[in-house]
Amino acid sequence: MADKPSVEVCFSPDRFDLYYQGQPIVVVIDVLRATTAMCVAFEYGVEKIIPVSSLEEAIEYQRMGFLVGAERNGKIVDGFDFGNSPTGFMTDKFNGKTIVLTTTNGTRAINTANKAETVIAAGFVNLDAVNQYLKEQQRDTLILCSGWKDRFNLEDTICGGAIVDYLVAEGSHISDHDSSVAAKYLYQSAKTNYFGFLKSSSHRRRLKKLNLQEDIKYSLTPNKTSVIPFLKEGELIKLG
Amino acid sequence: MADKPSVEVCFSPDRFDLYYQGQPIVVVIDVLRATTAMCVAFEYGVEKIIPVSSLEEAIEYQRMGFLVGAERNGKIVDGFDFGNSPTGFMTDKFNGKTIVLTTTNGTRAINTANKAETVIAAGFVNLDAVNQYLKEQQRDTLILCSGWKDRFNLEDTICGGAIVDYLVAEGSHISDHDSSVAAKYLYQSAKTNYFGFLKSSSHRRRLKKLNLQEDIKYSLTPNKTSVIPFLKEGELIKLG
Repeated sequence: MADKPSVEVCFSPDRFDLYYQGQPIVVVIDVLRATTAMCVAFEYGVEKIIPVSSLEEAIEYQRMGFLVGAERNGKIVDGFDFGNSPTGFMTDKFNGKTIVLTTTNGTRAINTANKAETVIAAGFVNLDAVNQYLKEQQRDTLILCSGWKDRFNLEDTICGGAIVDYLVAEGSHISDHDSSVAAKYLYQSAKTNYFGFLKSSSHRRRLKKLNLQEDIKYSLTPNKTSVIPFLKEGELIKLG
Repeated sequence: MADKPSVEVCFSPDRFDLYYQGQPIVVVIDVLRATTAMCVAFEYGVEKIIPVSSLEEAIEYQRMGFLVGAERNGKIVDGFDFGNSPTGFMTDKFNGKTIVLTTTNGTRAINTANKAETVIAAGFVNLDAVNQYLKEQQRDTLILCSGWKDRFNLEDTICGGAIVDYLVAEGSHISDHDSSVAAKYLYQSAKTNYFGFLKSSSHRRRLKKLNLQEDIKYSLTPNKTSVIPFLKEGELIKLG
């Protein structure tokens, strides 16, 4: 076991320090919708995404002339042009551009993970590509779910569980945390029917009220892209 | 739905303030082993249990002449006579006595929940009794898992999920939190075989190393007693 890499799951960014033990790779997940949107943005030609945690920083970038998106509580923040809608990035208008993004949970999670050697972003939409990448790396990995305002959420955990399930089958081990075991079990219960399983997810209900069914449907569909957003010196680029 | 009571699960004491919304009932769970041990203690005639959070307080009570138990990291703390072993309470020697107890997670969870109107302690060993009591109360309930040093744990969550599963079938609703949905799903996956399911639980492994198989087996067996420990003015007594 000792030379096999470990894989662990942390349920929310505020718990990061309890779970981070110097793992060289951290995988950040915000299925609904930040990391999913990032995959789409790169798929549609975005060059770079600068993730910022606060609206203050976002406004600062706006003043400097950047294209800036901001989402809070599922909605685009007043004064910004876009938010974190995956379908909203299905356009050529950001092609070749650098954009700045701040979201309720996802960008904060990315900035929390920043101390790791390698940080990538995952969702159901790029699951196989992420699994393949991690399998090739053979290094200790921490999966950081974005959650919802420091609370556990189901969709990120199940997506994290899918990665654990895959890596454990490939020889990785869960060294210490029940959260990783639980994520794997939840994925195994959910895998044949994400939509049905997640119908009771609180954030899905939250977004449904905001008429974001298209985003939800897209975000829960596995393997729409092979893009992996990759953090390099504080900015996200497309891996490879 | 509005007049039906709600039921929610909080995974660890340090998250209590994120999940506590004035629910009149809080159910504290520390399957391995504090709340299980409390049930046994009352079953064997203990009159009162004073739960204290710190070793300093425990030592203070010892100086005052109380019978004091203290556990940290699965072991009895040096200088104390007993810890939180359920089988250790299967004796007449505490009959009619008041004891003081401090444990790594469970007693802290009970003191965290103290602000609620009613606080009771649960484990697999008194599951039916707790379910029956909650069904009769018909009030909003928060289930507080003791976890392991602020981390999620599997056995408390599954026990909490068993209560959620029962109360939802009886008409309660999960109002807001994915943690409650996840607990219910995990229970449903685990219910036909707790032992098998929990073989990968980190705390079970921890206790197994300490040769506590008897305690584990007892703690995971449902409905050994109908005792419900009940917090009254900071002290636990037997309900009813």
